[in-house]
Amino acid sequence: MLPNDDALQAGLALARSLFDEIGARTFDGVGFSRPAYGEGEQIAHDIVAAAARDLDLAIDKDAALNLAMTLKGREPDRAALVLGSHLDAVPQGGNFDGLAGVLAGLACLASFRAAGIRPVQDVTVMAIRAEESAWFGAQHIGSRAMLGTLDESILDEARRVDSGRTLRDHMCEAGADVSKIKLRHALRDLHQLRGFIELHIEQGPTLVARGLPLGIVTGIRGNRRCRRIICRGDYGHSGTVPRALRHDAVVSTSELVTRMDDLWGRIEDEEGGDLVMTFGRFMTNPAAHSVTTVPGEVEFCFDVRSHSSELLKRSENALLQTMDEIAERRGVSFEHDPFSGDNPVIMDAAFQNILLDGCRQLGIPVTSLASGAGHDAGDFADAGVPSAMIFVRNENGSHNPEEAMEFSDFAQGVRLMTYFVAALNQT
Amino acid sequence: MLPNDDALQAGLALARSLFDEIGARTFDGVGFSRPAYGEGEQIAHDIVAAAARDLDLAIDKDAALNLAMTLKGREPDRAALVLGSHLDAVPQGGNFDGLAGVLAGLACLASFRAAGIRPVQDVTVMAIRAEESAWFGAQHIGSRAMLGTLDESILDEARRVDSGRTLRDHMCEAGADVSKIKLRHALRDLHQLRGFIELHIEQGPTLVARGLPLGIVTGIRGNRRCRRIICRGDYGHSGTVPRALRHDAVVSTSELVTRMDDLWGRIEDEEGGDLVMTFGRFMTNPAAHSVTTVPGEVEFCFDVRSHSSELLKRSENALLQTMDEIAERRGVSFEHDPFSGDNPVIMDAAFQNILLDGCRQLGIPVTSLASGAGHDAGDFADAGVPSAMIFVRNENGSHNPEEAMEFSDFAQGVRLMTYFVAALNQT
Repeated sequence: MLPNDDALQAGLALARSLFDEIGARTFDGVGFSRPAYGEGEQIAHDIVAAAARDLDLAIDKDAALNLAMTLKGREPDRAALVLGSHLDAVPQGGNFDGLAGVLAGLACLASFRAAGIRPVQDVTVMAIRAEESAWFGAQHIGSRAMLGTLDESILDEARRVDSGRTLRDHMCEAGADVSKIKLRHALRDLHQLRGFIELHIEQGPTLVARGLPLGIVTGIRGNRRCRRIICRGDYGHSGTVPRALRHDAVVSTSELVTRMDDLWGRIEDEEGGDLVMTFGRFMTNPAAHSVTTVPGEVEFCFDVRSHSSELLKRSENALLQTMDEIAERRGVSFEHDPFSGDNPVIMDAAFQNILLDGCRQLGIPVTSLASGAGHDAGDFADAGVPSAMIFVRNENGSHNPEEAMEFSDFAQGVRLMTYFVAALNQT
Repeated sequence: MLPNDDALQAGLALARSLFDEIGARTFDGVGFSRPAYGEGEQIAHDIVAAAARDLDLAIDKDAALNLAMTLKGREPDRAALVLGSHLDAVPQGGNFDGLAGVLAGLACLASFRAAGIRPVQDVTVMAIRAEESAWFGAQHIGSRAMLGTLDESILDEARRVDSGRTLRDHMCEAGADVSKIKLRHALRDLHQLRGFIELHIEQGPTLVARGLPLGIVTGIRGNRRCRRIICRGDYGHSGTVPRALRHDAVVSTSELVTRMDDLWGRIEDEEGGDLVMTFGRFMTNPAAHSVTTVPGEVEFCFDVRSHSSELLKRSENALLQTMDEIAERRGVSFEHDPFSGDNPVIMDAAFQNILLDGCRQLGIPVTSLASGAGHDAGDFADAGVPSAMIFVRNENGSHNPEEAMEFSDFAQGVRLMTYFVAALNQT
């Protein structure tokens, strides 16, 4: 049974007030900053937990401080359904990336509460920690810690970009029990999870371009990523070092970027391959560069994403080979941190069908589409938990203050989520 | 008449102690920092002025705080010969760039004093301010202020890289009389200058490669320079913005660098043209860049040098046209500060001949060579003062702490300078 419209509006009103409150408390003057295991994220957790207490949900934190807020179901032996997303936000980011998924879950449970309906199984809203790689250079830390897939070496290797302090430091300071975080030891019994549903703003332009409020995600692009590559050449006087004796880090790295961009163009135009490629940072050394100095050092990073594992591998290999070739010819060197990455994952087919059926029944225009960005849902799927994602139309991309999700589109997402909760055990 | 060897050694001993004292007082932990119109430069000026007082030289400062230290000649009506260079040094630079020329002049006058010889004309050692463009983004400020060729608009437009404060602020704070600095008003009567001789470390590899202690400069490459160019595209999520919708500032600027480097290669290989080209800075915006963000902004700079005015103009035009073409195709924009530059200049032929004759007579191996870097001597020549330069062999380039001038080579330069002073009125 579905909550009636009044009950749904009560849930949506709660979500709207929480968007406003969390946004106001985490505005940084330009956008919204909610540092992973930091102040802004904690503010959001505290506000969400207070709302859950008001709804009389059962509240639980795991050792990584992921917050679980549960509406007990009619049949306690059934595995729980999890609705969730993350509460951290990149520096000067938007208010909706992550937060929308947590508040959609809360709105959904508030609707059931207001309607006096108990779902069959437990339904847990999970507010996940530290999804964004912008803070520690490692993504999906909270969900991976919970799922037992976090490489614990990053506890001491990853340092937060604003403080320079380790992940371990920040987790302990926030109150986590780091001793329990071990690879292949999940913090919950994953067999007791019926599935994971994540609502998220679309971070690309597809739904806006097609005029659709919602999309159902088919799968998530995998990625290969290197956070730091340093090209070292030789500094020299810009007027006196002749071309043949130069070892110029800017020219070398520019050639690398240009050749990789050419490769991307060929893969897309000639082979129709799915790929996006980004060199998000490109920095000479401010302590040593000048207008009149041949640049001796560049630090940059690399990110490539694809639905195809083969194209990911091929892109990484092309980068390494092109670096070798340029290093040899131009007399520079390239040192790189280890590459990391996630495999492409597909979303649960049965869940997708329930969601597409729901849109038809509720009269919501929808399309299936792939996700270009990584999400916690990909980690749940990778760990064997059936997972699905609902994308909500959003203009101007994400990770910036101009994220523009219409609340009416969000409301359609919450309606679909209530449909899913009610339908899960009937299909 | 030339100072005898004992007198020359006395002059060299003075220079050696001043190199050590100024180096020790301006070491910054990595190299030597002597900010233009700042503390390190002032320390060097104070030490040099004290040494000049000990030599009983007449001391005078002009309104731009260039320091003149004069040994009065036997015939006071003759125009004065100036020996000089600058005392500022780039951040984390070397101890010899600039300083060697001032100390060579002092060593030369100390030798004449020790030998009890008065030259025919006044000989002035000039310690010039603010030659390096690294501090204010404008080069040769001290000599141009003195010669009446400084565009006074930079007093308020140029800001020092470390403080962010204007040239006017720093000059006033150091004690300059800025009201006297006006375009086309020299601070001295230039007709009373017989010539300008600048000894300087070579900043390129030629003398080391050819095994020669000294070189006589034929001319100075001109340059065209733009201190700041900004490429603006659009920030976006690295996983979700497809190739066709990207406006990537790093890819755009990398293509620009690569195409300009290709042009340089063609000019050098196919036309034998004299050119060096440098993009010394290339910076994404640290407040907005990340591994997972399509970069929306790059700031960079451009410097090109040549003996050919035509090649300078052609390189600047190629940069502007290539930026226009990339902006149109990739949907980005390029904004640039005004270009500045110096014309190529030639050194006085008669002075070059005296110096080459001197090397023959003193048994110093020497070659004629062009200067790739700009120098105060170029500004004196441009202003109509007959000028010449002596290059001293130096390994590892300049503008870095590894500058390696052998003192024995410097001593040959000082010997040649005493020869020039003695010979000037006899040829």
